[in-house]
Amino acid sequence: MTDRPGPTTRTRVLALSGLAARDRRDDLATEEPLEIRLASPPERRTVAITMRTPGHDFELAAGFLHGEGLAGEIEAIAYCTDDDVPPEARYNTVTVRVAGPLPELPALERHFLTSSACGVCGSASLEALHHRCVRLESALRVTASTLYGLPGKLRQAQGVFGRTGGLHAAGLFTAAGELLAVREDVGRHNAVDKVVGWAALQRLLPLSDHVLMVSGRSSYEIMQKALAAGIAMVCAVSAPSSLAVDLAREFGMTLVGFLRDERCNVYAGAERVEV
Amino acid sequence: MTDRPGPTTRTRVLALSGLAARDRRDDLATEEPLEIRLASPPERRTVAITMRTPGHDFELAAGFLHGEGLAGEIEAIAYCTDDDVPPEARYNTVTVRVAGPLPELPALERHFLTSSACGVCGSASLEALHHRCVRLESALRVTASTLYGLPGKLRQAQGVFGRTGGLHAAGLFTAAGELLAVREDVGRHNAVDKVVGWAALQRLLPLSDHVLMVSGRSSYEIMQKALAAGIAMVCAVSAPSSLAVDLAREFGMTLVGFLRDERCNVYAGAERVEV
Repeated sequence: MTDRPGPTTRTRVLALSGLAARDRRDDLATEEPLEIRLASPPERRTVAITMRTPGHDFELAAGFLHGEGLAGEIEAIAYCTDDDVPPEARYNTVTVRVAGPLPELPALERHFLTSSACGVCGSASLEALHHRCVRLESALRVTASTLYGLPGKLRQAQGVFGRTGGLHAAGLFTAAGELLAVREDVGRHNAVDKVVGWAALQRLLPLSDHVLMVSGRSSYEIMQKALAAGIAMVCAVSAPSSLAVDLAREFGMTLVGFLRDERCNVYAGAERVEV
Repeated sequence: MTDRPGPTTRTRVLALSGLAARDRRDDLATEEPLEIRLASPPERRTVAITMRTPGHDFELAAGFLHGEGLAGEIEAIAYCTDDDVPPEARYNTVTVRVAGPLPELPALERHFLTSSACGVCGSASLEALHHRCVRLESALRVTASTLYGLPGKLRQAQGVFGRTGGLHAAGLFTAAGELLAVREDVGRHNAVDKVVGWAALQRLLPLSDHVLMVSGRSSYEIMQKALAAGIAMVCAVSAPSSLAVDLAREFGMTLVGFLRDERCNVYAGAERVEV
Protein backbone atom coordinates (compact mmCIF):
# COMPACT_ATOMS: atom_id res chain seq x y z
CA MET A 1 0.00 0.00 0.00
CA THR A 2 2.94 2.35 -0.55
CA ASP A 3 0.81 4.18 -3.11
CA ARG A 4 -1.65 5.29 -0.51
CA PRO A 5 -0.76 8.67 0.98
CA GLY A 6 -0.92 8.96 4.79
CA PRO A 7 -2.05 11.96 6.84
CA THR A 8 1.51 12.97 7.70
CA THR A 9 4.71 13.01 5.65
CA ARG A 10 8.20 12.73 7.04
CA THR A 11 10.82 15.20 5.87
CA ARG A 12 14.21 16.64 6.78
CA VAL A 13 14.45 20.22 7.96
CA LEU A 14 17.13 22.68 9.00
CA ALA A 15 16.01 23.98 12.40
CA LEU A 16 17.37 27.42 13.33
CA SER A 17 17.24 28.76 16.86
CA GLY A 18 18.99 32.06 17.30
CA LEU A 19 22.33 31.51 15.59
CA ALA A 20 22.36 27.72 16.04
CA ALA A 21 21.36 25.42 13.18
CA ARG A 22 20.74 21.71 13.22
CA ASP A 23 19.41 19.18 10.79
CA ARG A 24 16.47 17.11 12.03
CA ARG A 25 13.39 15.14 11.00
CA ASP A 26 9.95 16.73 10.96
CA ASP A 27 6.37 15.62 10.25
CA LEU A 28 4.31 17.59 7.76
CA ALA A 29 0.57 17.52 7.23
CA THR A 30 0.14 15.75 3.90
CA GLU A 31 -1.56 17.77 1.17
CA GLU A 32 -2.72 15.89 -1.93
CA PRO A 33 -5.50 16.60 -4.43
CA LEU A 34 -8.74 14.62 -4.20
CA GLU A 35 -11.00 14.32 -7.20
CA ILE A 36 -14.67 13.80 -6.31
CA ARG A 37 -16.75 12.10 -9.00
CA LEU A 38 -20.49 11.61 -9.10
CA ALA A 39 -21.70 8.51 -10.94
CA SER A 40 -25.02 7.04 -11.99
CA PRO A 41 -23.83 4.40 -14.47
CA PRO A 42 -23.18 4.74 -17.29
CA GLU A 43 -22.91 8.47 -16.52
CA ARG A 44 -19.97 9.81 -14.53
CA ARG A 45 -18.85 13.37 -13.85
CA THR A 46 -16.03 15.14 -11.97
CA VAL A 47 -17.63 17.53 -9.51
CA ALA A 48 -14.59 18.95 -7.75
CA ILE A 49 -10.88 18.63 -7.18
CA THR A 50 -9.82 19.83 -3.76
CA MET A 51 -6.47 19.85 -1.99
CA ARG A 52 -6.89 17.82 1.19
CA THR A 53 -5.14 15.77 3.85
CA PRO A 54 -5.65 12.07 3.03
CA GLY A 55 -7.86 10.15 5.45
CA HIS A 56 -11.66 9.95 5.81
CA ASP A 57 -11.91 10.59 2.08
CA PHE A 58 -15.32 8.97 1.70
CA GLU A 59 -16.67 11.24 4.43
CA LEU A 60 -15.07 14.23 2.73
CA ALA A 61 -16.76 13.35 -0.56
CA ALA A 62 -20.16 12.71 1.08
CA GLY A 63 -19.92 15.91 3.14
CA PHE A 64 -18.84 18.03 0.21
CA LEU A 65 -21.70 16.78 -1.94
CA HIS A 66 -24.16 17.33 0.88
CA GLY A 67 -22.99 20.91 1.32
CA GLU A 68 -23.50 21.57 -2.38
CA GLY A 69 -26.97 19.99 -2.36
CA LEU A 70 -25.74 17.20 -4.65
CA ALA A 71 -25.69 14.19 -2.34
CA GLY A 72 -29.11 12.69 -3.14
CA GLU A 73 -29.37 9.01 -2.30
CA ILE A 74 -25.83 7.63 -2.01
CA GLU A 75 -25.60 3.98 -3.11
CA ALA A 76 -21.86 3.40 -2.87
CA ILE A 77 -18.56 5.23 -2.36
CA ALA A 78 -15.28 3.83 -3.64
CA TYR A 79 -11.75 4.77 -4.60
CA CYS A 80 -11.32 4.77 -8.33
CA THR A 81 -9.07 1.84 -9.12
CA ASP A 82 -9.96 1.76 -12.84
CA ASP A 83 -7.14 0.71 -15.13
CA ASP A 84 -6.93 4.19 -16.67
CA VAL A 85 -5.98 5.61 -13.26
CA PRO A 86 -2.23 5.34 -12.54
CA PRO A 87 -1.29 3.70 -9.20
CA GLU A 88 -0.16 6.95 -7.53
CA ALA A 89 -3.56 8.52 -8.18
CA ARG A 90 -5.81 5.62 -7.14
CA TYR A 91 -6.39 6.85 -3.63
CA ASN A 92 -6.88 10.43 -4.78
CA THR A 93 -10.09 9.79 -6.70
CA VAL A 94 -13.38 8.97 -4.98
CA THR A 95 -16.48 8.04 -6.93
CA VAL A 96 -19.86 8.48 -5.26
CA ARG A 97 -22.61 6.43 -6.92
CA VAL A 98 -26.05 7.95 -6.52
CA ALA A 99 -29.56 6.83 -7.45
CA GLY A 100 -31.25 8.51 -10.39
CA PRO A 101 -29.91 10.88 -13.04
CA LEU A 102 -26.96 13.17 -12.33
CA PRO A 103 -27.71 16.86 -11.76
CA GLU A 104 -27.27 19.15 -14.75
CA LEU A 105 -24.43 21.23 -13.35
CA PRO A 106 -22.43 21.34 -10.13
CA ALA A 107 -24.34 23.44 -7.60
CA LEU A 108 -21.29 25.63 -7.18
CA GLU A 109 -21.39 26.74 -10.78
CA ARG A 110 -25.13 27.18 -10.67
CA HIS A 111 -24.82 29.28 -7.56
CA PHE A 112 -22.16 31.42 -9.16
CA LEU A 113 -24.15 31.92 -12.34
CA THR A 114 -27.15 32.93 -10.28
CA SER A 115 -25.13 35.43 -8.29
CA SER A 116 -23.62 36.76 -11.44
CA ALA A 117 -26.97 37.39 -13.10
CA CYS A 118 -28.48 39.32 -10.20
CA GLY A 119 -25.28 41.07 -9.17
CA VAL A 120 -22.48 39.75 -7.02
CA CYS A 121 -22.84 40.77 -3.40
CA GLY A 122 -23.28 39.32 0.04
CA SER A 123 -27.05 39.68 0.11
CA ALA A 124 -27.36 38.05 -3.30
CA SER A 125 -25.32 35.12 -2.00
CA LEU A 126 -27.67 34.77 0.96
CA GLU A 127 -30.70 35.06 -1.31
CA ALA A 128 -29.36 32.30 -3.53
CA LEU A 129 -28.97 30.10 -0.43
CA HIS A 130 -32.69 30.42 0.26
CA HIS A 131 -33.32 28.34 -2.84
CA ARG A 132 -31.90 25.29 -1.13
CA CYS A 133 -31.82 25.92 2.62
CA VAL A 134 -34.57 26.91 5.06
CA ARG A 135 -34.30 28.92 8.26
CA LEU A 136 -33.37 26.58 11.12
CA GLU A 137 -35.82 25.93 13.92
CA SER A 138 -34.11 24.28 16.85
CA ALA A 139 -34.84 24.10 20.57
CA LEU A 140 -31.13 23.52 21.22
CA ARG A 141 -29.83 25.16 24.42
CA VAL A 142 -26.21 25.04 25.56
CA THR A 143 -24.83 26.47 28.81
CA ALA A 144 -21.88 28.87 28.74
CA SER A 145 -19.83 26.48 30.88
CA THR A 146 -20.41 23.68 28.35
CA LEU A 147 -19.21 26.04 25.59
CA TYR A 148 -16.08 26.92 27.56
CA GLY A 149 -15.17 23.23 27.67
CA LEU A 150 -15.33 22.64 23.91
CA PRO A 151 -11.96 24.09 22.78
CA GLY A 152 -10.05 21.88 25.22
CA LYS A 153 -11.90 18.75 24.11
CA LEU A 154 -11.28 19.57 20.47
CA ARG A 155 -7.59 20.19 21.06
CA GLN A 156 -7.21 16.98 23.03
CA ALA A 157 -8.86 14.92 20.31
CA GLN A 158 -6.55 16.54 17.75
CA GLY A 159 -3.55 14.86 19.38
CA VAL A 160 -2.65 12.57 16.50
CA PHE A 161 -1.86 15.30 13.98
CA GLY A 162 -1.13 18.00 16.50
CA ARG A 163 2.58 17.49 16.01
CA THR A 164 2.51 18.91 12.49
CA GLY A 165 1.03 22.19 13.69
CA GLY A 166 -0.52 22.44 10.27
CA LEU A 167 -4.07 21.17 10.49
CA HIS A 168 -7.47 22.70 10.94
CA ALA A 169 -9.95 20.76 13.05
CA ALA A 170 -13.73 20.49 13.17
CA GLY A 171 -15.59 18.70 15.94
CA LEU A 172 -19.22 17.72 16.37
CA PHE A 173 -20.61 17.88 19.92
CA THR A 174 -23.90 17.12 21.65
CA ALA A 175 -25.69 19.88 23.57
CA ALA A 176 -24.12 18.47 26.74
CA GLY A 177 -20.63 18.90 25.28
CA GLU A 178 -19.93 15.27 24.38
CA LEU A 179 -17.57 14.97 21.42
CA LEU A 180 -19.03 12.72 18.72
CA ALA A 181 -16.51 13.13 15.91
CA VAL A 182 -13.42 15.17 15.14
CA ARG A 183 -11.77 15.48 11.74
CA GLU A 184 -8.66 17.34 10.60
CA ASP A 185 -7.39 18.69 7.32
CA VAL A 186 -5.04 21.26 5.79
CA GLY A 187 -8.20 22.91 4.47
CA ARG A 188 -10.69 24.05 7.06
CA HIS A 189 -13.64 23.56 4.72
CA ASN A 190 -12.55 19.97 4.27
CA ALA A 191 -12.48 19.37 8.03
CA VAL A 192 -16.13 20.50 8.18
CA ASP A 193 -17.03 18.40 5.12
CA LYS A 194 -15.50 15.33 6.78
CA VAL A 195 -17.53 15.81 9.97
CA VAL A 196 -20.76 16.41 8.04
CA GLY A 197 -19.95 13.44 5.78
CA TRP A 198 -19.42 11.25 8.84
CA ALA A 199 -22.85 12.26 10.11
CA ALA A 200 -24.41 11.75 6.67
CA LEU A 201 -23.00 8.24 6.37
CA GLN A 202 -24.25 7.49 9.92
CA ARG A 203 -27.67 8.81 8.83
CA LEU A 204 -27.62 11.42 11.60
CA LEU A 205 -28.63 14.42 9.45
CA PRO A 206 -30.04 16.96 10.07
CA LEU A 207 -27.89 17.84 13.09
CA SER A 208 -30.31 20.29 14.69
CA ASP A 209 -29.40 19.29 18.27
CA HIS A 210 -25.65 19.46 17.74
CA VAL A 211 -22.84 21.99 18.00
CA LEU A 212 -20.08 22.33 15.42
CA MET A 213 -16.77 23.68 16.68
CA VAL A 214 -13.97 24.77 14.33
CA SER A 215 -10.37 25.52 15.26
CA GLY A 216 -9.96 28.67 13.20
CA ARG A 217 -12.21 31.40 11.89
CA SER A 218 -15.77 31.16 10.64
CA SER A 219 -16.51 32.30 7.10
CA TYR A 220 -19.46 32.26 4.75
CA GLU A 221 -18.49 28.85 3.41
CA ILE A 222 -18.19 27.23 6.84
CA MET A 223 -21.62 28.57 7.81
CA GLN A 224 -23.14 27.47 4.52
CA LYS A 225 -21.93 23.90 5.05
CA ALA A 226 -23.23 23.90 8.64
CA LEU A 227 -26.59 25.27 7.51
CA ALA A 228 -26.96 22.60 4.84
CA ALA A 229 -26.38 20.00 7.57
CA GLY A 230 -29.02 21.63 9.78
CA ILE A 231 -26.49 22.57 12.49
CA ALA A 232 -28.04 25.27 14.71
CA MET A 233 -24.88 26.31 16.57
CA VAL A 234 -21.37 26.97 15.25
CA CYS A 235 -18.47 27.90 17.54
CA ALA A 236 -15.02 29.04 16.47
CA VAL A 237 -11.78 29.73 18.31
CA SER A 238 -11.25 32.87 16.23
CA ALA A 239 -13.23 35.65 14.59
CA PRO A 240 -16.18 35.37 12.23
CA SER A 241 -16.41 37.35 8.99
CA SER A 242 -19.21 39.83 8.39
CA LEU A 243 -20.96 37.49 5.96
CA ALA A 244 -20.74 34.56 8.40
CA VAL A 245 -22.64 36.70 10.91
CA ASP A 246 -25.16 37.85 8.27
CA LEU A 247 -25.80 34.25 7.24
CA ALA A 248 -26.27 33.09 10.84
CA ARG A 249 -28.80 35.86 11.53
CA GLU A 250 -30.64 35.33 8.26
CA PHE A 251 -31.04 31.58 8.82
CA GLY A 252 -31.66 31.46 12.56
CA MET A 253 -28.29 29.97 13.51
CA THR A 254 -26.26 30.65 16.66
CA LEU A 255 -22.72 31.84 15.96
CA VAL A 256 -20.08 31.99 18.69
CA GLY A 257 -16.59 33.39 18.12
CA PHE A 258 -13.35 33.86 20.09
CA LEU A 259 -14.29 30.86 22.22
CA ARG A 260 -11.26 30.43 24.48
CA ASP A 261 -10.12 30.99 28.08
CA GLU A 262 -13.66 30.93 29.52
CA ARG A 263 -14.76 33.75 27.22
CA CYS A 264 -16.60 34.11 23.94
CA ASN A 265 -18.62 36.46 21.77
CA VAL A 266 -22.11 35.50 20.63
CA TYR A 267 -22.78 37.10 17.25
CA ALA A 268 -26.18 35.62 16.50
CA GLY A 269 -28.85 33.46 18.12
CA ALA A 270 -27.86 34.30 21.71
CA GLU A 271 -31.12 32.80 23.00
CA ARG A 272 -29.57 29.33 22.66
CA VAL A 273 -26.70 30.16 25.05
CA GLU A 274 -27.65 29.86 28.74
CA VAL A 275 -25.54 31.96 31.10
CA MET B 1 -20.70 55.89 -1.36
CA THR B 2 -22.79 53.86 1.07
CA ASP B 3 -22.89 51.12 -1.55
CA ARG B 4 -19.18 50.53 -1.34
CA PRO B 5 -18.29 47.94 1.28
CA GLY B 6 -15.42 48.80 3.65
CA PRO B 7 -12.77 46.45 5.05
CA THR B 8 -14.49 46.23 8.44
CA THR B 9 -18.13 46.00 9.43
CA ARG B 10 -19.59 47.17 12.71
CA THR B 11 -21.90 44.83 14.58
CA ARG B 12 -23.42 44.21 18.00
CA VAL B 13 -22.26 41.22 20.00
CA LEU B 14 -23.04 39.58 23.33
CA ALA B 15 -19.67 39.25 25.08
CA LEU B 16 -19.50 36.48 27.69
CA SER B 17 -16.70 36.29 30.24
CA GLY B 18 -17.15 33.55 32.79
CA LEU B 19 -20.76 34.00 33.90
CA ALA B 20 -20.96 37.70 33.05
CA ALA B 21 -22.61 38.85 29.84
CA ARG B 22 -22.65 42.28 28.26
CA ASP B 23 -23.80 43.74 25.02
CA ARG B 24 -21.18 45.67 23.06
CA ARG B 25 -20.05 46.80 19.63
CA ASP B 26 -17.49 44.83 17.64
CA ASP B 27 -15.67 45.19 14.32
CA LEU B 28 -15.75 42.30 11.88
CA ALA B 29 -13.56 41.69 8.87
CA THR B 30 -15.87 42.29 5.92
CA GLU B 31 -16.39 39.31 3.60
CA GLU B 32 -18.04 39.99 0.24
CA PRO B 33 -17.82 38.20 -3.10
CA LEU B 34 -15.68 39.69 -5.87
CA GLU B 35 -16.31 38.75 -9.47
CA ILE B 36 -13.22 39.01 -11.67
CA ARG B 37 -13.92 39.52 -15.37
CA LEU B 38 -11.47 39.47 -18.26
CA ALA B 39 -12.37 41.66 -21.22
CA SER B 40 -11.02 42.26 -24.66
CA PRO B 41 -13.95 44.16 -26.23
CA PRO B 42 -16.37 43.06 -27.41
CA GLU B 43 -15.51 39.82 -25.60
CA ARG B 44 -15.95 39.58 -21.85
CA ARG B 45 -15.78 36.57 -19.54
CA THR B 46 -16.13 35.86 -15.80
CA VAL B 47 -12.95 34.14 -14.65
CA ALA B 48 -13.60 33.73 -10.95
CA ILE B 49 -15.80 34.70 -8.05
CA THR B 50 -13.93 34.76 -4.77
CA MET B 51 -14.98 35.73 -1.25
CA ARG B 52 -12.69 38.56 -0.17
CA THR B 53 -12.28 41.54 2.12
CA PRO B 54 -13.00 44.71 0.12
CA GLY B 55 -10.00 46.97 -0.51
CA HIS B 56 -7.17 46.77 -3.04
CA ASP B 57 -9.58 44.97 -5.38
CA PHE B 58 -7.69 45.93 -8.55
CA GLU B 59 -4.52 44.44 -7.09
CA LEU B 60 -6.43 41.32 -6.11
CA ALA B 61 -7.72 40.92 -9.65
CA ALA B 62 -4.32 41.56 -11.23
CA GLY B 63 -2.57 39.22 -8.79
CA PHE B 64 -5.13 36.46 -9.22
CA LEU B 65 -4.86 36.61 -13.00
CA HIS B 66 -1.08 36.62 -12.79
CA GLY B 67 -1.10 33.53 -10.60
CA GLU B 68 -3.28 31.72 -13.10
CA GLY B 69 -1.10 32.75 -16.03
CA LEU B 70 -3.93 34.85 -17.46
CA ALA B 71 -2.71 38.39 -16.89
CA GLY B 72 -1.13 39.09 -20.29
CA GLU B 73 -0.87 42.80 -21.07
CA ILE B 74 -3.27 44.65 -18.78
CA GLU B 75 -4.72 47.78 -20.44
CA ALA B 76 -7.19 48.90 -17.80
CA ILE B 77 -8.86 47.79 -14.58
CA ALA B 78 -12.20 49.13 -13.47
CA TYR B 79 -15.20 48.43 -11.28
CA CYS B 80 -18.15 47.37 -13.31
CA THR B 81 -20.65 50.19 -13.13
CA ASP B 82 -22.69 49.01 -16.12
CA ASP B 83 -26.42 49.66 -15.90
CA ASP B 84 -27.17 45.95 -15.65
CA VAL B 85 -25.22 45.78 -12.38
CA PRO B 86 -27.33 46.76 -9.36
CA PRO B 87 -25.82 49.44 -7.08
CA GLU B 88 -24.99 47.03 -4.21
CA ALA B 89 -22.90 44.90 -6.57
CA ARG B 90 -20.99 47.67 -8.39
CA TYR B 91 -17.93 47.49 -6.20
CA ASN B 92 -17.93 43.71 -6.20
CA THR B 93 -17.18 43.29 -9.88
CA VAL B 94 -13.80 44.14 -11.39
CA THR B 95 -13.17 44.02 -15.11
CA VAL B 96 -9.59 43.66 -16.34
CA ARG B 97 -9.14 44.71 -19.96
CA VAL B 98 -6.28 42.95 -21.70
CA ALA B 99 -4.71 43.24 -25.12
CA GLY B 100 -5.40 40.53 -27.66
CA PRO B 101 -7.89 37.66 -27.65
CA LEU B 102 -9.13 36.11 -24.41
CA PRO B 103 -7.71 32.72 -23.45
CA GLU B 104 -9.86 29.70 -24.30
CA LEU B 105 -10.55 28.58 -20.75
CA PRO B 106 -9.62 29.75 -17.27
CA ALA B 107 -6.23 28.28 -16.39
CA LEU B 108 -7.74 26.81 -13.28
CA GLU B 109 -10.09 24.61 -15.25
CA ARG B 110 -7.40 23.72 -17.72
CA HIS B 111 -5.07 22.74 -14.92
CA PHE B 112 -7.77 20.61 -13.35
CA LEU B 113 -8.60 18.87 -16.60
CA THR B 114 -4.93 18.15 -17.17
CA SER B 115 -4.55 16.66 -13.72
CA SER B 116 -7.65 14.64 -14.23
CA ALA B 117 -6.47 13.12 -17.48
CA CYS B 118 -3.11 11.97 -16.17
CA GLY B 119 -4.29 11.01 -12.71
CA VAL B 120 -4.88 13.29 -9.76
CA CYS B 121 -1.92 13.39 -7.41
CA GLY B 122 0.65 15.75 -5.99
CA SER B 123 3.36 14.93 -8.52
CA ALA B 124 0.92 15.37 -11.42
CA SER B 125 0.05 18.81 -10.03
CA LEU B 126 3.74 19.73 -9.93
CA GLU B 127 4.25 18.36 -13.43
CA ALA B 128 1.38 20.47 -14.73
CA LEU B 129 3.00 23.53 -13.16
CA HIS B 130 6.12 22.95 -15.26
CA HIS B 131 4.07 23.86 -18.32
CA ARG B 132 3.88 27.48 -17.16
CA CYS B 133 6.60 28.01 -14.55
CA VAL B 134 10.35 27.48 -14.64
CA ARG B 135 12.72 26.60 -11.82
CA LEU B 136 13.81 29.80 -10.06
CA GLU B 137 17.39 30.96 -10.24
CA SER B 138 18.09 33.63 -7.67
CA ALA B 139 21.22 34.86 -5.90
CA LEU B 140 19.04 36.10 -3.01
CA ARG B 141 20.64 35.71 0.42
CA VAL B 142 18.95 36.64 3.70
CA THR B 143 20.49 36.48 7.16
CA ALA B 144 18.76 34.59 9.96
CA SER B 145 18.53 37.76 12.03
CA THR B 146 16.75 39.55 9.17
CA LEU B 147 14.28 36.66 9.00
CA TYR B 148 13.63 36.85 12.74
CA GLY B 149 12.60 40.47 12.33
CA LEU B 150 9.95 39.86 9.66
CA PRO B 151 7.01 38.60 11.79
CA GLY B 152 7.14 41.68 14.02
CA LYS B 153 7.21 44.05 11.05
CA LEU B 154 4.30 42.25 9.43
CA ARG B 155 2.25 42.32 12.63
CA GLN B 156 2.96 46.00 13.16
CA ALA B 157 1.87 46.89 9.64
CA GLN B 158 -1.32 44.90 10.18
CA GLY B 159 -2.45 47.35 12.81
CA VAL B 160 -5.45 48.76 10.95
CA PHE B 161 -7.41 45.52 10.73
CA GLY B 162 -5.75 43.84 13.69
CA ARG B 163 -8.73 44.66 15.84
CA THR B 164 -10.99 42.24 14.00
CA GLY B 165 -8.65 39.31 14.70
CA GLY B 166 -10.01 37.85 11.52
CA LEU B 167 -7.57 38.65 8.75
CA HIS B 168 -4.69 36.88 7.07
CA ALA B 169 -1.74 39.02 6.05
CA ALA B 170 0.91 38.79 3.36
CA GLY B 171 3.93 41.08 3.23
CA LEU B 172 6.60 41.67 0.63
CA PHE B 173 10.10 42.41 1.92
CA THR B 174 13.50 43.22 0.44
CA ALA B 175 16.49 40.98 1.23
CA ALA B 176 17.47 43.49 3.91
CA GLY B 177 14.09 43.10 5.59
CA GLU B 178 12.48 46.32 4.42
CA LEU B 179 8.70 46.03 4.14
CA LEU B 180 7.47 47.13 0.70
CA ALA B 181 3.80 46.21 0.85
CA VAL B 182 1.40 44.46 3.19
CA ARG B 183 -2.12 43.34 2.32
CA GLU B 184 -4.81 41.65 4.37
CA ASP B 185 -7.86 39.55 3.62
CA VAL B 186 -10.25 36.99 5.12
CA GLY B 187 -8.77 34.60 2.54
CA ARG B 188 -5.05 33.99 2.75
CA HIS B 189 -4.75 33.34 -1.00
CA ASN B 190 -6.31 36.74 -1.59
CA ALA B 191 -3.76 38.46 0.65
CA VAL B 192 -1.00 36.95 -1.52
CA ASP B 193 -2.83 37.87 -4.73
CA LYS B 194 -3.11 41.48 -3.53
CA VAL B 195 0.62 41.72 -2.81
CA VAL B 196 1.56 40.14 -6.15
CA GLY B 197 -1.00 42.34 -7.91
CA TRP B 198 0.51 45.42 -6.27
CA ALA B 199 3.93 44.41 -7.60
CA ALA B 200 2.48 43.61 -11.03
CA LEU B 201 0.83 47.03 -11.30
CA GLN B 202 4.12 48.66 -10.17
CA ARG B 203 5.85 46.62 -12.90
CA LEU B 204 8.16 45.01 -10.32
CA LEU B 205 7.70 41.39 -11.48
CA PRO B 206 9.47 38.99 -11.32
CA LEU B 207 10.26 39.39 -7.60
CA SER B 208 13.38 37.24 -7.56
CA ASP B 209 15.18 39.40 -4.96
CA HIS B 210 12.24 39.58 -2.56
CA VAL B 211 10.84 37.66 0.37
CA LEU B 212 7.13 36.92 0.82
CA MET B 213 5.93 36.47 4.39
CA VAL B 214 2.47 35.10 5.22
CA SER B 215 0.75 35.16 8.60
CA GLY B 216 -0.59 31.61 8.54
CA ARG B 217 0.43 28.34 6.95
CA SER B 218 1.95 27.69 3.57
CA SER B 219 0.09 25.45 1.16
CA TYR B 220 0.43 24.37 -2.45
CA GLU B 221 -1.64 27.31 -3.65
CA ILE B 222 0.37 29.92 -1.77
CA MET B 223 3.61 28.50 -3.18
CA GLN B 224 2.17 28.32 -6.69
CA LYS B 225 1.24 32.01 -6.58
CA ALA B 226 4.69 32.94 -5.23
CA LEU B 227 6.38 30.85 -7.92
CA ALA B 228 4.37 32.50 -10.69
CA ALA B 229 5.59 35.87 -9.36
CA GLY B 230 9.19 34.64 -9.34
CA ILE B 231 9.50 34.94 -5.54
CA ALA B 232 12.49 32.87 -4.40
CA MET B 233 11.79 32.87 -0.66
CA VAL B 234 8.52 32.31 1.21
CA CYS B 235 8.28 32.53 5.01
CA ALA B 236 5.29 31.59 7.14
CA VAL B 237 4.46 31.94 10.82
CA SER B 238 3.03 28.41 10.84
CA ALA B 239 3.62 25.02 9.24
CA PRO B 240 3.92 24.18 5.56
CA SER B 241 2.03 21.28 3.97
CA SER B 242 3.87 18.38 2.34
CA LEU B 243 3.03 19.61 -1.14
CA ALA B 244 4.22 23.14 -0.35
CA VAL B 245 7.61 21.65 0.53
CA ASP B 246 7.63 19.42 -2.57
CA LEU B 247 6.85 22.41 -4.78
CA ALA B 248 9.58 24.53 -3.18
CA ARG B 249 12.19 21.80 -3.72
CA GLU B 250 11.06 21.06 -7.26
CA PHE B 251 11.21 24.71 -8.33
CA GLY B 252 14.30 25.88 -6.44
CA MET B 253 12.47 28.03 -3.90
CA THR B 254 13.39 28.62 -0.26
CA LEU B 255 10.61 27.75 2.19
CA VAL B 256 10.76 28.82 5.84
CA GLY B 257 8.13 27.77 8.40
CA PHE B 258 7.36 28.37 12.09
CA LEU B 259 9.13 31.74 11.86
CA ARG B 260 8.58 33.22 15.32
CA ASP B 261 10.44 33.98 18.56
CA GLU B 262 13.90 33.99 16.92
CA ARG B 263 13.40 30.48 15.55
CA CYS B 264 12.37 28.89 12.28
CA ASN B 265 12.55 25.74 10.19
CA VAL B 266 14.01 25.83 6.70
CA TYR B 267 12.28 23.20 4.58
CA ALA B 268 13.88 23.91 1.22
CA GLY B 269 16.60 26.06 -0.32
CA ALA B 270 18.58 26.52 2.92
CA GLU B 271 21.55 27.89 0.95
CA ARG B 272 19.76 31.26 0.77
CA VAL B 273 19.62 31.60 4.57
CA GLU B 274 22.84 32.88 6.15
CA VAL B 275 23.36 31.92 9.78
